[in-house]
Amino acid sequence: MATEAAQHSETYEEFITLVERISNVGSAQSLLNWDQEVMMPEEGTPARSKQLSALSAVSHELLTGEEMAGYLDELADADLDAEQAAVVREVRRKYERAARVPTDLVETISQTAAEAHPLWKEAKAEDDFSIFAPKLEELVELKREYAEHIDPDRDPYAVLFEDYEPYLGLDTAEETLTELRDELVPLVEDIRASDADLATPFEGEFDEATQEELARDVLDTLGYDWDRGRLDVAPHPFSTGNQFDARVTTRFDESDPLGALTSTVHEFGHATYTLGLPDEHYGTPLGESRDLTVHESQSRLWENHVGRSEPFWQRFLPSMRERFPQVDDATPRDVYEAANTVKEDNLIRVEADELTYHMHIVVRFEVEKELISGELDVEDVPEVWNDKYEEYLGIRPETDAEGCLQDIHWSHGSFGYFPTYSLGSVLAAQLYEAAEDDLGALDERTREGEFDELHAWLTENVHQHGCLYTTDDLVQEATGEGFTADYFLDYVTEKYGELYDLH
Amino acid sequence: MATEAAQHSETYEEFITLVERISNVGSAQSLLNWDQEVMMPEEGTPARSKQLSALSAVSHELLTGEEMAGYLDELADADLDAEQAAVVREVRRKYERAARVPTDLVETISQTAAEAHPLWKEAKAEDDFSIFAPKLEELVELKREYAEHIDPDRDPYAVLFEDYEPYLGLDTAEETLTELRDELVPLVEDIRASDADLATPFEGEFDEATQEELARDVLDTLGYDWDRGRLDVAPHPFSTGNQFDARVTTRFDESDPLGALTSTVHEFGHATYTLGLPDEHYGTPLGESRDLTVHESQSRLWENHVGRSEPFWQRFLPSMRERFPQVDDATPRDVYEAANTVKEDNLIRVEADELTYHMHIVVRFEVEKELISGELDVEDVPEVWNDKYEEYLGIRPETDAEGCLQDIHWSHGSFGYFPTYSLGSVLAAQLYEAAEDDLGALDERTREGEFDELHAWLTENVHQHGCLYTTDDLVQEATGEGFTADYFLDYVTEKYGELYDLH
Repeated sequence: MATEAAQHSETYEEFITLVERISNVGSAQSLLNWDQEVMMPEEGTPARSKQLSALSAVSHELLTGEEMAGYLDELADADLDAEQAAVVREVRRKYERAARVPTDLVETISQTAAEAHPLWKEAKAEDDFSIFAPKLEELVELKREYAEHIDPDRDPYAVLFEDYEPYLGLDTAEETLTELRDELVPLVEDIRASDADLATPFEGEFDEATQEELARDVLDTLGYDWDRGRLDVAPHPFSTGNQFDARVTTRFDESDPLGALTSTVHEFGHATYTLGLPDEHYGTPLGESRDLTVHESQSRLWENHVGRSEPFWQRFLPSMRERFPQVDDATPRDVYEAANTVKEDNLIRVEADELTYHMHIVVRFEVEKELISGELDVEDVPEVWNDKYEEYLGIRPETDAEGCLQDIHWSHGSFGYFPTYSLGSVLAAQLYEAAEDDLGALDERTREGEFDELHAWLTENVHQHGCLYTTDDLVQEATGEGFTADYFLDYVTEKYGELYDLH
Repeated sequence: MATEAAQHSETYEEFITLVERISNVGSAQSLLNWDQEVMMPEEGTPARSKQLSALSAVSHELLTGEEMAGYLDELADADLDAEQAAVVREVRRKYERAARVPTDLVETISQTAAEAHPLWKEAKAEDDFSIFAPKLEELVELKREYAEHIDPDRDPYAVLFEDYEPYLGLDTAEETLTELRDELVPLVEDIRASDADLATPFEGEFDEATQEELARDVLDTLGYDWDRGRLDVAPHPFSTGNQFDARVTTRFDESDPLGALTSTVHEFGHATYTLGLPDEHYGTPLGESRDLTVHESQSRLWENHVGRSEPFWQRFLPSMRERFPQVDDATPRDVYEAANTVKEDNLIRVEADELTYHMHIVVRFEVEKELISGELDVEDVPEVWNDKYEEYLGIRPETDAEGCLQDIHWSHGSFGYFPTYSLGSVLAAQLYEAAEDDLGALDERTREGEFDELHAWLTENVHQHGCLYTTDDLVQEATGEGFTADYFLDYVTEKYGELYDLH
């Protein structure tokens, strides 16, 4: 037995070396992607695409090769501690999904997505769905085929969803989205019927350079670690990196200084999760973040529960006034109202308030679920999309550009991604409530700009665990109960009830 | 035979796919290195080092694996055209060098260099050679061992030199450096004895932001392709990339606006070579630059023959005056003199004029050659170094920080690199002369800021060939004769004779 244990221990070491190599190749890909969005000169694309696909191929071969298969086989009956078992569980899951899909199909999907992306851009620019439709149809079929390779006996959409959220299950997503729809549709109707008139304190122009300084101020206020991060501009803001180097991006609109700040705080939330991962586990699942639901919970917690709160603006408005004297007359309450206004006519997901946001997600979820199941034909997407907007949001897009063509995800071949946005928001409320249970009400500390305790709580209960727990276990560990939308619904009902005088 | 040819053609295709993959992994490494120098936050190093070493390991395994060995074996007797044969020649050369060195030794060298680098920095900062000496000794021994694995029957220094210049041969380097030493030592003595008093038009402070605008102006003037490049700041200026994305860096000294401009023009020369490589051969040796001698010839040609010429300053001084009104009184001749002043007391290679520069190289060459052969002990390096400075340059360093510790190369384990700097300068003169033979005198066009013909000549005769030719054949093709220092010696004799009134 001792010899067998020693043998397993040696195998585990070799396995970890391979796991770290795959992870590091993945980190290199992330950096190349960051550079492409933020730094790369315009005509660099042909070389960059080839670099990225070479790294993908290397990574795929390392993950699905005989060496990995051998380790996983040998470790299947090894006596592992909890951390080792978690690493094996996560790697095995990725191995099995990757190994079941033929390399040819992976390449075809990646190539079709590469072709689809410029067509989507063109279709959106020209407001002509027919330009994108044929490639969308190909992608739908290819991703259905992909899902069937992974598991021919299950709903292919459920299989695809697990690429983004592996453990909560599509049932949870579906129940949550149904609950959100059922509760939020009447709430939004009440808001629309309300006479409340929310403040609009931001008039005129806010120059980009000063907005950037303000974005740096907000990161300072929240406690961003500049020694392990940086802020740049990107057309579609994102965050990327690892615990030693987690970067954020934002974008500026000279008529809307809140937009850049909100997106900066959102990306800060992602980055602060990444920076809270344990240094010593860099390169293995114990040092990597727990998929998209949890990641989005961190960005939404900071964006919504901190950044869109009145106490936050009591703290931060003076910094804004220093940079932009034209808002001298605004009160924290004014900015709080502006940051939480439910616009009657907004058709665009990324510009939505935190309430109607979920109606945007519900539409996409219902549409892509039926697309993958085959109940909905690609050609019928625009009409079904517009009908659902009318039903859930009371507004009907007049163009496909601001309708079903607004989001990039499908052109990447990503189906099943959208629900994680809502799950993340819901989890943010649950985690924030649990943090307040442990720490007491946080409003006063937000008002003082003291975020250390919240950071510490999130690090202790979420970040430091990496992928040690599955998503559901992590929620249970951190909050003492299972995943639930109750806290989110209470939070928005109270917040918007007060804002719109619904009580 | 037809079947065999078809078989070879299929093998060649598969071989190229593997070659491209290795090249793309290398390009990813270059980008990670660029990012580390230019963008990465301070504490990102632990993760970045692991990413880089994972990519090195992947690259090494792909290059030396069975798959590559099989292709090279099969292609050895295949009927290949000239381009295919060149690709096989270049890859085989790299394969053989890499495959002969045990992976353990490669890793030990890389680890020792990683440990040596901070010790070198500390030794330089504290002016204490003994801090660096033990690691330097290890590196010397390891690199000797490395060379012996590649070829036990040859001078190890000659083998190391071929990592940087594979085809010209150490004999050519040695003859060239001896010739430079013999011709330039008396020339420098004449200059020191001369009464000529060269102009010093740059007094006072030149702020960094304006210097950066001026660096952009100079790149505009020379015809840098901003759609395929960018300019950033780095502590040690360098250029990196590929034909779709070739970036330059520079650094600024507020008391010396010429320094940043000269280094920008130098890096522009490197980048313009890279940008002249054929797009369609990206990822194979036909789309990659011909090693360090030729690369340095391109940077030196633009730096010295263009950027340090009087016609260039007739063109560019007005731009400088616009940015810095304090140089309103300077004439092009003044700047030309300032850019070519042979300072009596300069001990620093990177600050040397284009004449004494080679004496700095000769010292390093002679020292490292004896270090690798074992004739010189590490502990004796400072004294031998200082003696040689006295002999060749008439000055003696008072500290090791400005003596044998000034350059970074040995701390990287690079021995045999320095001679390529001189070979490149020499080749620059030979190529510039050949260009003038074909195009007529270029001064007038420089004065007009018309560089298209020179670009076209260099692209046609050098850049577009990638690694199709070996270095010696490329020189022959481009200039109609073998590599020679004659043109360089004529050029500096005439230029400095005029500047210092030696006729």
